[in-house]
Amino acid sequence: MTAPVVLDRADLHASLADPALLSMNFLNEVAGRFPEAVSFAPGRPTEDLFDPADLHRYLDTYRRYLAEHKGYDEARVRRELFQYGRTKGIVHELIARQLEQDEGITVDPEAVVVTVGAQEALWLVLRALRAGERDVVLAVDPTYVGLTGAARLVDLPVRPVHEGPRGVRPEDVLERIREVRAAGERPRALYLVPDFSNPSGHSMDVRTRHRLLEIAAEEDILLLEDNPYGYFRAAGSGRPPTLKALDTGQRVVYLGSLAKTCFPGARVGFAVADQRVAGPEETLFADELSRAKSMVTVNTSPVSQALVGGMLLEHGGSLLRANRRQIGIYRRNLKRLVQGLHRRFAELPGVHWNTPAGGFFVVLTVPFAVTDELVEHAAVRHGVLFTPMRHFSDDDRTCHQLRLSCSSLTPDQIDTGLDRLAALIAERTSTPGA
Amino acid sequence: MTAPVVLDRADLHASLADPALLSMNFLNEVAGRFPEAVSFAPGRPTEDLFDPADLHRYLDTYRRYLAEHKGYDEARVRRELFQYGRTKGIVHELIARQLEQDEGITVDPEAVVVTVGAQEALWLVLRALRAGERDVVLAVDPTYVGLTGAARLVDLPVRPVHEGPRGVRPEDVLERIREVRAAGERPRALYLVPDFSNPSGHSMDVRTRHRLLEIAAEEDILLLEDNPYGYFRAAGSGRPPTLKALDTGQRVVYLGSLAKTCFPGARVGFAVADQRVAGPEETLFADELSRAKSMVTVNTSPVSQALVGGMLLEHGGSLLRANRRQIGIYRRNLKRLVQGLHRRFAELPGVHWNTPAGGFFVVLTVPFAVTDELVEHAAVRHGVLFTPMRHFSDDDRTCHQLRLSCSSLTPDQIDTGLDRLAALIAERTSTPGA
Repeated sequence: MTAPVVLDRADLHASLADPALLSMNFLNEVAGRFPEAVSFAPGRPTEDLFDPADLHRYLDTYRRYLAEHKGYDEARVRRELFQYGRTKGIVHELIARQLEQDEGITVDPEAVVVTVGAQEALWLVLRALRAGERDVVLAVDPTYVGLTGAARLVDLPVRPVHEGPRGVRPEDVLERIREVRAAGERPRALYLVPDFSNPSGHSMDVRTRHRLLEIAAEEDILLLEDNPYGYFRAAGSGRPPTLKALDTGQRVVYLGSLAKTCFPGARVGFAVADQRVAGPEETLFADELSRAKSMVTVNTSPVSQALVGGMLLEHGGSLLRANRRQIGIYRRNLKRLVQGLHRRFAELPGVHWNTPAGGFFVVLTVPFAVTDELVEHAAVRHGVLFTPMRHFSDDDRTCHQLRLSCSSLTPDQIDTGLDRLAALIAERTSTPGA
Repeated sequence: MTAPVVLDRADLHASLADPALLSMNFLNEVAGRFPEAVSFAPGRPTEDLFDPADLHRYLDTYRRYLAEHKGYDEARVRRELFQYGRTKGIVHELIARQLEQDEGITVDPEAVVVTVGAQEALWLVLRALRAGERDVVLAVDPTYVGLTGAARLVDLPVRPVHEGPRGVRPEDVLERIREVRAAGERPRALYLVPDFSNPSGHSMDVRTRHRLLEIAAEEDILLLEDNPYGYFRAAGSGRPPTLKALDTGQRVVYLGSLAKTCFPGARVGFAVADQRVAGPEETLFADELSRAKSMVTVNTSPVSQALVGGMLLEHGGSLLRANRRQIGIYRRNLKRLVQGLHRRFAELPGVHWNTPAGGFFVVLTVPFAVTDELVEHAAVRHGVLFTPMRHFSDDDRTCHQLRLSCSSLTPDQIDTGLDRLAALIAERTSTPGA
């Protein structure tokens, strides 16, 4: 009988103790402890439309496609679903077709890497781009915590470009690139969510998109365009083109999530990486990502890919069509949230919020500090949860901000949650004894 | 219109150009070009028993388990399958119960991390253990290329411990640890496949297992026990206990694959990481791995986990029972391969092979160099494929060796493949003009 080993956290990779990774844990943990609280915290899709019968039908639809459209015999169909498979994935052609239909993005299916969620795609890109100590990635700040966490895992520093009140400004990106260069670092890419950003809800106008593409070419960096929410636009406004649709110089790596447009449990996302890579043998950047993927997850579950493929096939290959009902739900919820904020807080000094043109998130500014302790208090005393913006930013302006997500709530839950939030705000803003 | 970007391979992470990652590509590429060749190359499971109807049934079995055994209502069942979920997975209890039943491994389900294949588990462990420049991992050499590739992705050097003719010797492990320390490096763990190793086919006797556990405790390293083939033992020999079953000091991180015992397309594996981690807050090593996982794949597809869970439930929680027919197929194939080698090459000077007690692999030694060029030639001229042992080792002794895998072939294919291999060997050993 030997004494049990005790490992020391200090002997493990530093990322494991990093605030970016711990904050995700904190939020999950609090949500788990207060299941009865109304939670504006997670950016989860609505559960209203989940139906287990879909899983069976999607699978059968995809099998029929393999047999009838691809001409596979039974043994080949079985192999495709059960066996190890192509590292870059098997629904790459369906994804390329979807991008063409829904986004006007024309891309060789060979440039698509199907991944275990967009998170793996993001991690692979950062892994590939971190060649040495001087490499850094820029990120529009506040930033999705998954970018920061993935960067930590490959020892890649993240240099923030702070958003102004109307989103990121190209001149600030340019200035940051120059600062970073002056400090001896090499900026490899800028990470951004151009449509209904997580967490800020901002969207970029077309002019900003064009200007960022110019800057990327002039400064020789890539743009990592993350687009999980682009289809969830509020009624009455047009969809601006994605950066990738405008990208004539292959400056954009497009990161696609199917978590919100199909379902998170499929764990299917993708990267479009059509950049040429010079070397002893010319490849696509997608092939480089694929090589790294082969040593992390080998390939994305073909059963999961079949589910996504079946859903696409049932809707003529279009995510927009597949999400008609979801789009309606998110529009309704966002409107309810913004109207509810207006009704409760329009007259309250120091309380304001933005009105995103779509997506899942609204940022609320309050006249007191929004800390993890406040989240705990809000859960215990008021039965409401949200995310401090501090988790997404090192900008002091975010200290008084919180992110409200409305995607997985019912209208009644949104109302109840806002009432509870109002009680918290009243408690924090009332003058003692007044 | 801007000029398209051309990335330079030299500006990408060095792992992407590493032989370990390229060799996998080479083999896949050759196999793809010669689909009609008999391939002894891939360590894939048999396809004889794959049945799409199983997917539907496993899913329904698992759903019933959630409803009836776990008491979940319909909404909760839907959420469990469709939504984001627990980072450490949802079939952890079933896996812990399976390990208890089949292996006599008693482990807290909280110490199980369900991963996207065993490859992700391996990568997570290496990521966590690589805290600084001095850290290295030891590996029994020849080594599974997935270990080398994963290590490259986290900049962790691999220090080989060469196998002798009867497998790895504990004194060689000890010597290597001391050499590594003398060179200023810190050995964190030893990677090994104690049962029917990939690629060598070797198995460790119980005495060696005990001794390695002692060495791990004395030298303060972990043992990374990878066990994809342990259930596929030839008839007539007992199963020795796994290292983890003998592990009283939590020195072993057990890496479990379900690719061979369920099916590869599920992409489900796991790590058992029950080590305590001291720090500001005590955790399990599993929790540390989970934190890294949350930033790479977020969680393992719950649909995939449901498939694995359903299969386990249908066989009383036992993989041994679930694999009764598979075990028979692999026994038959290995016997056929070894007998076929004997029949064809027993009298041939310079040609010999080992006789593993189970698993998928036999190593054949031939009196000529086994290179990638030879693989290409064998495919084009003889219609047979295999893996040069050089891909798994830096030991010069492997230059004349090749790995034969028999797991996914029929008996007839094995015979045909061996005839073709015999023709190649005859061609290479014949004296010109004789």
